Amino acid sequence: MPTLILLRHGQSQWNLEDRFTGWVDVDLTAEGEAQAKKGGELIKAAGLQIDRAYTSVLTRAIRTLWLALTAAGQVFVPETKDWRLNERHYGGLTGLNKTETAAKHGEDQVKIWRRSYDVPPPPLAPGGEFDFSKDRRYAGALLPDTESLKTTLDRVQPYWDAEIAPHLARGETLLIAAHGNSLRAIVKLLFGLSDEAIIGVEIPTGNPLLIELDAKLKPTSSRYLDEARATALPELA
Amino acid sequence: MPTLILLRHGQSQWNLEDRFTGWVDVDLTAEGEAQAKKGGELIKAAGLQIDRAYTSVLTRAIRTLWLALTAAGQVFVPETKDWRLNERHYGGLTGLNKTETAAKHGEDQVKIWRRSYDVPPPPLAPGGEFDFSKDRRYAGALLPDTESLKTTLDRVQPYWDAEIAPHLARGETLLIAAHGNSLRAIVKLLFGLSDEAIIGVEIPTGNPLLIELDAKLKPTSSRYLDEARATALPELA
Repeated sequence: MPTLILLRHGQSQWNLEDRFTGWVDVDLTAEGEAQAKKGGELIKAAGLQIDRAYTSVLTRAIRTLWLALTAAGQVFVPETKDWRLNERHYGGLTGLNKTETAAKHGEDQVKIWRRSYDVPPPPLAPGGEFDFSKDRRYAGALLPDTESLKTTLDRVQPYWDAEIAPHLARGETLLIAAHGNSLRAIVKLLFGLSDEAIIGVEIPTGNPLLIELDAKLKPTSSRYLDEARATALPELA
Repeated sequence: MPTLILLRHGQSQWNLEDRFTGWVDVDLTAEGEAQAKKGGELIKAAGLQIDRAYTSVLTRAIRTLWLALTAAGQVFVPETKDWRLNERHYGGLTGLNKTETAAKHGEDQVKIWRRSYDVPPPPLAPGGEFDFSKDRRYAGALLPDTESLKTTLDRVQPYWDAEIAPHLARGETLLIAAHGNSLRAIVKLLFGLSDEAIIGVEIPTGNPLLIELDAKLKPTSSRYLDEARATALPELA
């Protein structure tokens, strides 16, 4: 039976400082490391055997995966890292503190950028502190300079279709350690959620979301492994 | 220029207890973790940019890789794990303390098993504590039940030829985090050492061995990044 475990990375230094992180390669805090480890312990306690793991090219997600696999006693599973599982690219907001951004652009505008489905922030200026185009981990890729949740999904979907779905179709159990918005994109795809509905889905950090699927990759059940820290889940169709 | 970094895993619990480990999935000690981290720091200090990393399916080598990549600030590089980079399979000696083994089989016999090129220990009895055939990480593989250094090389070589050499031929910089004997097999291949000469090569743990190669993958230079803990290196032809 195809099984998917979604794991959102734990707290990073910039979560703590409430800055727009996006593609900036900020590391986990000690608290974030502990959350990742806890996630792995929950996977182990649930008796889940992972066949394959996926993550982004950002340190906080990769280390979340490694810490979780270590705690689960399954470090040997094949892993793939791809930028298409990265966090949403926050464009010109990258690196800004959320309070400062609100003071500059107004609360309402920031809320639109954060909570709308398809309104991207202004693009990231090239050549600045956060120009990702020269980072070798993106060599050869055609990169965005800002993203909405919609355009995040637009680059997650081809990767999902080509690299992830075929393994699920073989009945594998997959772990994806990624970010709030790349995981939202996957949840929207899987549950067939509307643009409005996905905005209301908030995946907690370090709490593995276990989704069982049928042969057509339609979810048949979903639950968080840490029930005490669960948020509302999409209804099954 | 093709560049290869060989990194032998740090101290494991059974290194400490002086037991024949082979394929038993023993974890690193705190000292072993520190050695791996040090290896990564040396890679970073040398300014080496890794394109791709390889390791075995054994926890002590995988975690050595992860700790080294973390310390080197390069967790995003693609990784491949394969059992053909595993430690030599110690057959029926697996799990035995080296002193006890000498008492049982005689010092001379144990020395032959440990230090000869092509004499394997007795095979591992199936169905015992250390029967690896039911471990899912080896599903579908035709596994040995004992190995000499020669037969270790016999399974490293096809993997080297098919998966590693083509990337070197493209001029990449590769990191291989593995084991005393699988790394010896690679050194024998690369330097064209005799069966006798390879027995004398002892790669220190946690000390990255940097090998630069020409377009035909012939070594042009080799050195340990931690010179204070270097051992003798094969001569360049």
